[in-house]
Parts: sequence; structure tokens; C-alpha cells
Amino acid sequence: MNTIRSLLKKTGVQAAFFAAFGAAAWYGGSYYERQRCREKLASLGLPVTLSEYPQFPITPIISAAEVDQNRVALVQKRTSEIMRFGFPSLNNVRYFDDFLLSYDNRTRVANWVFEHLTEENLKVKDNVNRELCQFVEDPTIHQFFRSTNADYYRSGYDRGHLAAAGNHKLQQSHCDQTFTLSNIAPQVGVGFNRGAWNRLEKYVRAQARHNSNVYVCTGPVFKPHREADGKKYVKYEVIGERDVAVPTHFFKVIVMEGHDNKLTMEAYLMPNQPINDNAPLTQYLVRIIRKSLYNNNSISPPTKLSK
Amino acid sequence: MNTIRSLLKKTGVQAAFFAAFGAAAWYGGSYYERQRCREKLASLGLPVTLSEYPQFPITPIISAAEVDQNRVALVQKRTSEIMRFGFPSLNNVRYFDDFLLSYDNRTRVANWVFEHLTEENLKVKDNVNRELCQFVEDPTIHQFFRSTNADYYRSGYDRGHLAAAGNHKLQQSHCDQTFTLSNIAPQVGVGFNRGAWNRLEKYVRAQARHNSNVYVCTGPVFKPHREADGKKYVKYEVIGERDVAVPTHFFKVIVMEGHDNKLTMEAYLMPNQPINDNAPLTQYLVRIIRKSLYNNNSISPPTKLSK
Repeated sequence: MNTIRSLLKKTGVQAAFFAAFGAAAWYGGSYYERQRCREKLASLGLPVTLSEYPQFPITPIISAAEVDQNRVALVQKRTSEIMRFGFPSLNNVRYFDDFLLSYDNRTRVANWVFEHLTEENLKVKDNVNRELCQFVEDPTIHQFFRSTNADYYRSGYDRGHLAAAGNHKLQQSHCDQTFTLSNIAPQVGVGFNRGAWNRLEKYVRAQARHNSNVYVCTGPVFKPHREADGKKYVKYEVIGERDVAVPTHFFKVIVMEGHDNKLTMEAYLMPNQPINDNAPLTQYLVRIIRKSLYNNNSISPPTKLSK
Repeated sequence: MNTIRSLLKKTGVQAAFFAAFGAAAWYGGSYYERQRCREKLASLGLPVTLSEYPQFPITPIISAAEVDQNRVALVQKRTSEIMRFGFPSLNNVRYFDDFLLSYDNRTRVANWVFEHLTEENLKVKDNVNRELCQFVEDPTIHQFFRSTNADYYRSGYDRGHLAAAGNHKLQQSHCDQTFTLSNIAPQVGVGFNRGAWNRLEKYVRAQARHNSNVYVCTGPVFKPHREADGKKYVKYEVIGERDVAVPTHFFKVIVMEGHDNKLTMEAYLMPNQPINDNAPLTQYLVRIIRKSLYNNNSISPPTKLSK
């Protein structure tokens, strides 16, 4: 003790001691306060760290220096090609290399997905293989609103593509991106995803081979029906921990630009149910105006219409 | 005939004749083509005029010269006050003089409505009277997605306010604006809109009198439930020609800033059902994180939390 006292009498050591004591107290106090805050938040049922909350904007902020300008220019160019007739809505728009989508936080399914097909970009290049693709979460969607593979597990539904994998085989990365779960919706497998819906996708690709340009807008529909009590209801299943909505129907709006530059538009509305293999696709042709009423997407018609 | 022929021989008259003939032919041709186009569109089940289609943007384009700059400055100032904690989402945002909302085209009900209340702006000035207010359609929402008074007629539901009329009595125009149908949702009348929900609105006003500032975010919830088959479903009624969604629940998130500048946040989730008059409001307090999961609104928490 005496040695300590005599040491403390030396000014330099005194200063060092007080500095160390102060630092320890400061860290101790801040640690205590941090713990108190964590407990308070936890007792209120609130996430402990602010980063757990969805914020707006949700995507991480990156400095301009980190942005690859060549890639930005490429995406901008492709976007202007794909979205030639404008955006149906602007909520949570996500830009992929070969398609775009608007995501609905409430249903955990896209509002719409837009693609642009030509004979040229439908070619399979460099042995692109969908067997190499894996379904992955979309990291740009906040974890509160993001659908996951676990949500689909044992749900009885397929992870159905909105932008079809078969439309994006120019590069492996294009094909990979269609497996991002924001481009996926719960679809009945046998008779729909692997049946009639697949036939519709093949029909679209055939059109791309017979026209200069084909623009495709695809999305879910939650259609009302009348019940025995005479009232109308919207009812749909939700799957998994995140309550991913199972659409009652899916739509596809196709704008075809012929080699004569004439524009034709077709709209399809298919129930998310097994459909008879012999049912002609034309049975599911609808008036575009009806489709608009069932969801929140507005599609502008081409200025010229033929057929 | 001879007179006509001789007249035509005069160069000036010839020119006039050909000009008139040309003009007539041009108008005739364009009239014929217009009619043909109308018939074609009608036969396809499409609206005859392009203005009938929802376009993006939907609001009419006005020239800068028509904008009242004083009013713009006023709305901007009020917006920054109301939205102090940011926007939960940015889809179809509508700016009113004393509140803001985001509109959901699919449900025909707002995603969220934001208000800012103080003791001062809760005062009733200039004999503002809600009896003078009338429910009116929101002309800034395209007619496809706009709810109308006819949709509510004989539906059995009240036209329930999201931004409460009682919170906006500083000016008659403020009160009037809360009766715009984009701020209205179908609510059970007896026991809810005129009962527990009204009590919650009064509680919020009381908080505004005991605090410096109160920020209120209100909106619909479409909550899933489990049925006998073990699966989860979202089910809600839709009313009227326009299929206006009847929310299963309504939420209110309240951020209160005390006179000591401390912030407190409370979230309420109430079923759109008759609620017992004796049920305490605290029974409907929920964890804010749960609420976020039920719909597409993200609310950032205040940076400091007390209580």
C-alpha cells in the first residue's frame, strides 16, 4: 500500500492513474447504459438494434466511387429497352440484368415483372444451364418482407418463375437472376406451373421468334369471388413463416411488334389451379381492362393496335 | 356546269377549289380512320379513347406557370413537419393540407395516412363544422382504382376516416379534405367506428394535449388466420362495383414527443369488428414489429425511446 501511495504522489503516475480510472469508468458507464437500453427495447418487444428495423431506403448506401459506371450504363440501356411502354407502378422497383420487377412487401410477391424478348436474346449461349441455378433470397428486400426458401418448403407449391428462366439464357448470370425469390411466386405444380403456364411461356417464346420484339408483363392476381351469403370476398392462402401469398390467378400481358412494325397486345388470366392439358390458351385471353381492375398494375396500351 | 368550268379555268379559283377539296378529303379520311379505330377498339373490348386507360403518371400535367408557389411552399413546410420520421413507403403518395397518405390501387384503400397533432393545431377555429363536409372521390386517383360513394352504399359499412375529421378543425378546408374517399376505409359502424376506434382517436387527441408533438400513422391490415384444414389464409370482403377491400384490422402507430423532448411510441391493432365498450385500449397494444409483418408499411422507430 505504501508503495502505491508513494507512486501516486508522483504527478505523472497520478495523471496516468486518473486517466485509466476515467477511461474504465467511461466504458463501464456506457456499457451499463447500452445494456439498460437493450433490456428496455427487449421488454417493449422491440428489436435490440436499430438495424433490425426496416428503414427507407432499405438498400445499403454506397458511395459513388464504388459504383461500376459501365455496369450502370448497361443496366440503364437494357431498362429503357425492356420498359419501352413505361412502368405500370414504381413501388420497390428492382433492376436485374435482363428483367425488372416491382415488389409488394405485403404479399411478398412481385406486383409485376417485365421482360423484353427477341429471337436474338432467346438464344442459349455459352452452354447456359438452369440446373446450375439455385433459388436465393433477394438481399435488397428487407428481411421482414423477403420470401425465403423455407417459406416454400413442404408448402405443396412450386417456386414458380414470373420472368421465365427459359427466356434468359444468353448468359448464366441472367438465368441465375431469374431464381431470385422476388421473381418467384407460389404456383400449383402439376397441371399449372409444369402444365398450362409452361405452355403459355412457350407460346410467348414462339411469338418472339415470329416478331421483331415481344414485351411481357407477368404478375399475380388476387381475384374476388361471390360466396353463398351473396357477398364478394378475396381469399388466398399464405405459406411459411413470412406469410407468402399464394395468388388466385396469374396474368401475362404480351405486346408484340411485328416485322411490319405493327403492335398487337394480348392479355391472359389463368387460375392458379391444375388446367386440362387440352384446354386451348385462347380460353384464357381476357380484356386488358378487367385485369387492371383486379390488381394495382396499370398497363398502357400501345399507340397502334392491329389484329 | 359551264359557269363552274369557266370559273375553274381561272387559276385563283382553281387553287381555292383544290384547297377546299383537299381539306374536305383530309377531314373525311381522318374521320373515317378515327371511326374505324374506335370500332376496332370497341370490338376488342378496349376503351375507345386512350384517356380512359390508366397511364403513369395519372395526375394531369400542369405547366409551371399554373402552380401557386406560395401554396407549394406551405405544403412543403407542412409535409416536412408531418413526415418528420420519414415515409413508410412511396407508392401513390397524396399531399393534403394537413395530412399525407399513400394509396393502394389494388385494395382501393390507403396503405397509410400520416398526421401531426399539437395542442395548437387541434383547436377548432372559425366555427369549422364537419356537418358541412361531404364525402368526395379523389380525382387524383385514376377512375379504375378510385373508390366511390356508390361502393359504400348499402354495403353495411361506415365510410371510416383514417385521418380523423376531429384532428383537422383549424380550417374548414382541412376538415373537408379528410372526407376525400382516399382517406376513407370500410369500417364496422356500431361498436367500432362509432365505438372503440373513436375512443382510440380521442385518446390520441388527449396525448396531443399532454405532449409537444404527436405523430400518427393509421392504416388497414389484412391479417392471416388459420383455418380447420391447418392452412393459413387471408380473407376479406370487397364492396361495391370497384371491389373496395374491407380491412380485417386497422392499425395506429403513435409517436409522442414530451415537453422534455423524450419520445415514446405505441402501436395499436384493432379488429374491424364490434368491440366491447368496456375493453381497455391497452388490450390492443401490439409490438410494432408484428404490425409491420402484416402489411407493407415500415415505420422507423424514433432514435430515443422512453417509458
